[in-house]
Amino acid sequence: MPSTGEQMAPRIAVDAMGGDFGPQVVVPGAVDAAREGIAVTLVGDEERINAELAKLNTGGLDISVVHATQVVEMDDKPADALRRKRDSSIQVACRLVKDGGADGVVSAGNSGATVACGMFVLGRIKGVLRPALAGIMPTEKTPVVLIDVGANVDSKPQHLFQFGLMADVLARYVLGVDNPSVGILSIGEEEGKGNATVRESFDLLRESNLRFIGNVEGRDIFTGDVDVVVCDGFVGNVALKLSEGLAKSMSSLLRKELTASWLSKLGALLSLRAFKRFKKLVDYAEYGGAPLLGLKGVVIVAHGKSNELAVANCIRMAATSVRNRTHEHLAEGLAAHKDITGRNGRSDKDAA
Amino acid sequence: MPSTGEQMAPRIAVDAMGGDFGPQVVVPGAVDAAREGIAVTLVGDEERINAELAKLNTGGLDISVVHATQVVEMDDKPADALRRKRDSSIQVACRLVKDGGADGVVSAGNSGATVACGMFVLGRIKGVLRPALAGIMPTEKTPVVLIDVGANVDSKPQHLFQFGLMADVLARYVLGVDNPSVGILSIGEEEGKGNATVRESFDLLRESNLRFIGNVEGRDIFTGDVDVVVCDGFVGNVALKLSEGLAKSMSSLLRKELTASWLSKLGALLSLRAFKRFKKLVDYAEYGGAPLLGLKGVVIVAHGKSNELAVANCIRMAATSVRNRTHEHLAEGLAAHKDITGRNGRSDKDAA
Repeated sequence: MPSTGEQMAPRIAVDAMGGDFGPQVVVPGAVDAAREGIAVTLVGDEERINAELAKLNTGGLDISVVHATQVVEMDDKPADALRRKRDSSIQVACRLVKDGGADGVVSAGNSGATVACGMFVLGRIKGVLRPALAGIMPTEKTPVVLIDVGANVDSKPQHLFQFGLMADVLARYVLGVDNPSVGILSIGEEEGKGNATVRESFDLLRESNLRFIGNVEGRDIFTGDVDVVVCDGFVGNVALKLSEGLAKSMSSLLRKELTASWLSKLGALLSLRAFKRFKKLVDYAEYGGAPLLGLKGVVIVAHGKSNELAVANCIRMAATSVRNRTHEHLAEGLAAHKDITGRNGRSDKDAA
Repeated sequence: MPSTGEQMAPRIAVDAMGGDFGPQVVVPGAVDAAREGIAVTLVGDEERINAELAKLNTGGLDISVVHATQVVEMDDKPADALRRKRDSSIQVACRLVKDGGADGVVSAGNSGATVACGMFVLGRIKGVLRPALAGIMPTEKTPVVLIDVGANVDSKPQHLFQFGLMADVLARYVLGVDNPSVGILSIGEEEGKGNATVRESFDLLRESNLRFIGNVEGRDIFTGDVDVVVCDGFVGNVALKLSEGLAKSMSSLLRKELTASWLSKLGALLSLRAFKRFKKLVDYAEYGGAPLLGLKGVVIVAHGKSNELAVANCIRMAATSVRNRTHEHLAEGLAAHKDITGRNGRSDKDAA
């Protein structure tokens, strides 16, 4: 029997082989999440998983292990992972959800393969044109959802419109934002700025029941003044990786300067607590996961560099998503805007 | 007689009314540049310019003033600025170049209007499909040129290809990079990743005589390992503004943390020199200007928030561009790749 997410604890299937560090980081992260009452199924090389579990105190926790003989490598092509590695940990984890053995999947493995397996194995919610990856990024205030961060390129206005609908549901029911504001990423604040796709999407979003605030610019993403930022997956992926790269470069420059003299070293030592808090704020591990929205099941794509905290956070996020019936709200939101999405004769069949 | 940039000092027309701070910042910045032997023509409200000049020691400097009765405001639409403000400081400055009274223009004013005036008044170099704005950004090593950062949206592969050619010339003859590496911004390192336009542009760039290194990702921009990054103006503008916003947010978070306790305050005080050096590295004022490439004349779009140093740097950059005959090299580069650019029957007439 599938757990319904109502009375029973949500059960999350975790790709134990995924990520740059594999079972030795994923397993302890999953155990941390299990300590909070989440049921966890670890999928992958049984022997290696059990070896990691043996190092930890798992008494009384609802943890099961499902063996998978294959592993998707970071440089495997998504299509190859799908076809040639049917018994890979990520594909087995997705099938668990499909078959009712789990409510959601978390993987820190090859993200292209995770997206492909999620789409292929679980399938789309009725009405969804294209599933989208929602990046959750830290800001000066509350986190911002950037959608899409790489599941789609060359998106059409109807796709961008639905990304906004889906991220609104995510912000409400997973991040706990009351009446989230939604903007569309453009290159000027005024209406009419941007490229052809953005201008058309602007019109669709304005007609919806979302709290649409119009165009937002690159500089507005990190202020925390907007809850959801809609964009094509090409732009979103560039933005996500650029932010990551810039934060890393800034930190490394600062470290270099601070260790350049004994005086600055002493200063840095005295300010250590402040730096730690700062690092925490800019650290992706705090959020770490990008939900893939629009599928019949919860899929969270964790960062390849995820540490234990990030893995645990992703599992928590998946559980919250299940508990708060995000998928039902998503289907409702899509159904309520069917007239806007279906315009110009576009329908489900239009999806890639 | 126009100065040829060979024997005579280059003469740069400076929009004295532009930028968030107007003449009181632009005039001292221009005077600093003039002290290095650059001839400067300040364009704008004669009375205000002279009042600022009177505060400074300008003896022996080649500084002239040309009166303009109008000013383009930051929120004026580019088209309106062109049609209704024919005697604006930026338009008069561009006409000076057109008529041979100056070799280049620098403006920190409304950037859309500056781009529009540059294109309309100066016109394109033969063979240029679309002029492009080259953002010059600090990295961990030498600066990187990101092109286009907002002059064009919905660019076609031939446009992106030419952006690469033009930025290569900029990197060589203005930034002094020997044999610059050129990448195309995409969402995966492997060939074949990206959207349709990027994939086509990849093929064109590979055929050129540029040192093309293939796809680069958002995270590669700030490492300093690539000299030129080619992208559509929508993506580039988002990237530029996002970087600016993120750097600002990170600095403000850090400041907040460092002043949260007396201990961290003391630490920050001891590390002050390190922070100043760090700030200088991430500070756009050090570069401050985005050259608009592909026009019959040098146009540098300075940041609206430019301080004196940034204004002076932009004037220096314009002068270097004139001295090193960037435009001739640009025309040569375009002519050498005519067969690639002209493919599919595309030509000059194809430009927007």
